[in-house]
Amino acid sequence: MAGSSVKPTPLLRDELDIVIPTIRNLDFLEMWRPFFEQYHLIIVQDGDPSKTIKVPDGFDYELYNRNDINRILGPKASCISFKDSACRCFGYMISKKKYIYTIDDDCFVAKNPSGEQINALEQHIKNLLSPSTPFFFNTLYDPYREGADFVRGYPFSLREGVTTAVSHGLWLNIPDYDAPTQLVKPLERNKRYVDAVLTVPKGTLFPMCGMNLAFNRELIGPAMYFGLMGDGQPIGRYDDMWAGWCMKVICDHMGWGVKTGLPYIWHSKASNPFVNLKKEYKGIYWQEDLIPFFQSAVLPKECVTVQQCYIELAKQVKEKLGKVDPYFIKLADAMVTWIEAWDELNSLEDKSSKQPNGTSK
Amino acid sequence: MAGSSVKPTPLLRDELDIVIPTIRNLDFLEMWRPFFEQYHLIIVQDGDPSKTIKVPDGFDYELYNRNDINRILGPKASCISFKDSACRCFGYMISKKKYIYTIDDDCFVAKNPSGEQINALEQHIKNLLSPSTPFFFNTLYDPYREGADFVRGYPFSLREGVTTAVSHGLWLNIPDYDAPTQLVKPLERNKRYVDAVLTVPKGTLFPMCGMNLAFNRELIGPAMYFGLMGDGQPIGRYDDMWAGWCMKVICDHMGWGVKTGLPYIWHSKASNPFVNLKKEYKGIYWQEDLIPFFQSAVLPKECVTVQQCYIELAKQVKEKLGKVDPYFIKLADAMVTWIEAWDELNSLEDKSSKQPNGTSK
Repeated sequence: MAGSSVKPTPLLRDELDIVIPTIRNLDFLEMWRPFFEQYHLIIVQDGDPSKTIKVPDGFDYELYNRNDINRILGPKASCISFKDSACRCFGYMISKKKYIYTIDDDCFVAKNPSGEQINALEQHIKNLLSPSTPFFFNTLYDPYREGADFVRGYPFSLREGVTTAVSHGLWLNIPDYDAPTQLVKPLERNKRYVDAVLTVPKGTLFPMCGMNLAFNRELIGPAMYFGLMGDGQPIGRYDDMWAGWCMKVICDHMGWGVKTGLPYIWHSKASNPFVNLKKEYKGIYWQEDLIPFFQSAVLPKECVTVQQCYIELAKQVKEKLGKVDPYFIKLADAMVTWIEAWDELNSLEDKSSKQPNGTSK
Repeated sequence: MAGSSVKPTPLLRDELDIVIPTIRNLDFLEMWRPFFEQYHLIIVQDGDPSKTIKVPDGFDYELYNRNDINRILGPKASCISFKDSACRCFGYMISKKKYIYTIDDDCFVAKNPSGEQINALEQHIKNLLSPSTPFFFNTLYDPYREGADFVRGYPFSLREGVTTAVSHGLWLNIPDYDAPTQLVKPLERNKRYVDAVLTVPKGTLFPMCGMNLAFNRELIGPAMYFGLMGDGQPIGRYDDMWAGWCMKVICDHMGWGVKTGLPYIWHSKASNPFVNLKKEYKGIYWQEDLIPFFQSAVLPKECVTVQQCYIELAKQVKEKLGKVDPYFIKLADAMVTWIEAWDELNSLEDKSSKQPNGTSK
């Protein structure tokens, strides 16, 4: 290939959309150009729809603002958050691809300890395309990685693993801390590159961050609802957490895997801890009820699709968390609306004919 | 301290024993001298008791051979394996210290990516003295480590963690593979230094390797029985696995934590895969029943001591695994004998008066 100017086709180019929620010009994409340029972007514009978001030249994208979301979803648009990056899940819904990678616009390309730029998307794809091992922990981490394997004592019957639904990536520089921890440790930076990918075991919950996240949309997409956050809602910054807990309960039920670890991105700037505290304080309080709820949630075996699981979970949220605060009754209703909207946009007969309806380039 | 020749007292010097099972001269200790010299060693001599094991000068040790074990335990010595490194658990029993570190005699000092020698024992002690987080997964790994913390979405009520019972360290160079994997990948070496310590979540089993392992003996010692292996037994190389599964079920019941990850040692030589295959083949087969057994084992809340838990587990082993093979009936009886012997050597009134009875130096 020496002398050829033809770039190699990147992995899953035609099967993956990159979803970016934003309120500003997407200059950060310049840094990602070598890694993202051949992929399709779905940009979900948060906040004032009259503002124009500038996207650097050469990227293939479609952009949806609030007016587009309202027009496409009609009254069901109420399930999509406004003035909060939770709006990104509209991008998951409108995509027609098998895989989604979502990244925040303050995330830059990180370097590995050898100083090489990390192709985060490529690592996510590797994570998604190789199996997970949720039923037994492998002490040398990902057994499918080159140079690793299952260790002595790992049951042979479990070595085929299961399908991976989600790949959760991490962050160098600014760690994803809550407001109280940000306030207490304003100068803490994550400098530790942990060279591992591991499966979050079955039955174990974790805090899923939406900053650097990939998933198999065809498999788990309908569970990736980022909830009601931001404008008009009593909390924020729990959108990705909510999706993570719902998704994990459903993946455990369905027998799919969730990975965390590599790849890292470089998280450039900390959000304002005072603003965050206001968004988070109810969540911090409610969470003490949410975790036991999700830890004990059981889905009946009749639930055989993600949609069925999600509707059942919404029912349980209403019944059990509705007592914690009326917000959860509203959220449970929005979860049902989300599934209705998902099915409307993703019905089988529409699959080929559906046209995106935002600004395309 | 410049110019002083007084070495600083190492962590827990008077509260930790290093247990080494061996059949050969302990030249490997030369490499560990700077790290082990100030600690007390318990050497359990495996095989022919008439053979003299040479220990390098300057180490403080006691040594037990088969004759010593038989003399000290009498008929209960039947629970201690012969011609198998499983005999190491006699050292756990005879120790009077709060903590144990056990290491194989083919394990050398590893280097971290900066080329510095790793003080494995110091890292194990750090792991044991800081809490564990078995109830919720922290995506930045050990939250108590310098430069890390709990991430956004980690419930505040769980941030105190729980007492750590076990610290499971890893191996660079020769990975701890089973015989089939050794045969298939004879040249595979573990070159990946993963800079992480993490808690194995509650309800998750893992393959505990005895090569580089530390634990709180006062807390979990009676569960650290390495079973019946080697001479006269139908299997080998499942001693540490067995201990790990029993220990994990009991730690989960008692609410204690188990960590895995750092520190690494340098595992110098692979054992013979053909010999290993002979030792392992029944274990590989039986394991398919053992894992579901341990995954579903429930200890009644009346079990409030490790001894009670272990006796109950022995009962369940006899009832449920006895059907798999008569070996497990014998093993269940040995588990009971082990607890009887443990209690005899560790009864409260004897705690101060008990004298070790092997060869001391």
